[in-house]
Amino acid sequence: MNKTDFKGSVMLNPVPVVLVTSKNKEGKVNVFTVAWAGTVCTKPPMISISIRPERLSHEYISETREFVINLPSSKLVKRVDFCGVKSGKNIDKIKHLGFTLNEGINVSVPSIAECPVNIECKVKDIIPLGSHDLFTAEVVLNRVDDNLLDEKGKIHFEKADLVAYSHGEYFTLAKKPLGKFGYSVRKKR
Amino acid sequence: MNKTDFKGSVMLNPVPVVLVTSKNKEGKVNVFTVAWAGTVCTKPPMISISIRPERLSHEYISETREFVINLPSSKLVKRVDFCGVKSGKNIDKIKHLGFTLNEGINVSVPSIAECPVNIECKVKDIIPLGSHDLFTAEVVLNRVDDNLLDEKGKIHFEKADLVAYSHGEYFTLAKKPLGKFGYSVRKKR
Repeated sequence: MNKTDFKGSVMLNPVPVVLVTSKNKEGKVNVFTVAWAGTVCTKPPMISISIRPERLSHEYISETREFVINLPSSKLVKRVDFCGVKSGKNIDKIKHLGFTLNEGINVSVPSIAECPVNIECKVKDIIPLGSHDLFTAEVVLNRVDDNLLDEKGKIHFEKADLVAYSHGEYFTLAKKPLGKFGYSVRKKR
Repeated sequence: MNKTDFKGSVMLNPVPVVLVTSKNKEGKVNVFTVAWAGTVCTKPPMISISIRPERLSHEYISETREFVINLPSSKLVKRVDFCGVKSGKNIDKIKHLGFTLNEGINVSVPSIAECPVNIECKVKDIIPLGSHDLFTAEVVLNRVDDNLLDEKGKIHFEKADLVAYSHGEYFTLAKKPLGKFGYSVRKKR
């Protein structure tokens, strides 16, 4: 396998692509799209998102130190793209896109009702890295659409039709998984 | 849309799932699987991975402060699962799984030849969070399989058949993208 070398970028793919809601001290709410997001700790449950300092959401989240990660389903992807391109400085994206806001439970920031999963976060630390600041945050609540739950209360994420981002393009996941964690060593019954 | 609340976990999905190679001071090489990974900065290009302190790779990477992120294609997913379940303390996973190692270019750590993309990283910081330590790292080189490149040298990640991880299951991406970054505002020609 011959390979070619490239410098100066991050080729980690696929990554998540999520809608992040935030609120400033005056109560104004904004939404923007983040692909530089990841799970960073299991206990306590923690997430990180990276934000450019010039972004309006950077200002809002720095002020209140709270945000909500809203996982979009594939039918929302055009709106997701819009929220990544347009700035809340020039347009009220929530109003323009017709998003419904639900009040936060453990944070003051509202979540997007149309998204099947909402993850309420409280900022722990803000770490400047360069073009982006890294916000590490503790998850204080997950809200899951009842349509994803079976009778036993088990969550079926595959019903959420979530979206991944790979090298500048949005993708749904295949319908069927390749396998489940641990399947390589599980003994056949 | 009625929703149910859950505490105590991170429901960010999908996330990447990658093979991380590392090397200790004595030159021993290990590989393990990481899903708690993300892009954290564009300039300089930076990645983060989170590792439990009890992991052998935590020891190796802390010693040499270098690692390589190897993106697996779907045909490698059973081996990816194995590398997430089994510890290098008990088994030489690279030998057992028949991985071919390529020497590092800008790091001393080798990469996995069978993976279509290899991302060489140098650790910037190690931040304890709880169950996991967050390793932030600068990308010093990307190596891309020539089969992913077209005649103009453009990379076609869709040919890599990469894998996403969602709620404990491995998935390929759909063949066709839903859209490209910026498509929601692009004027039709």
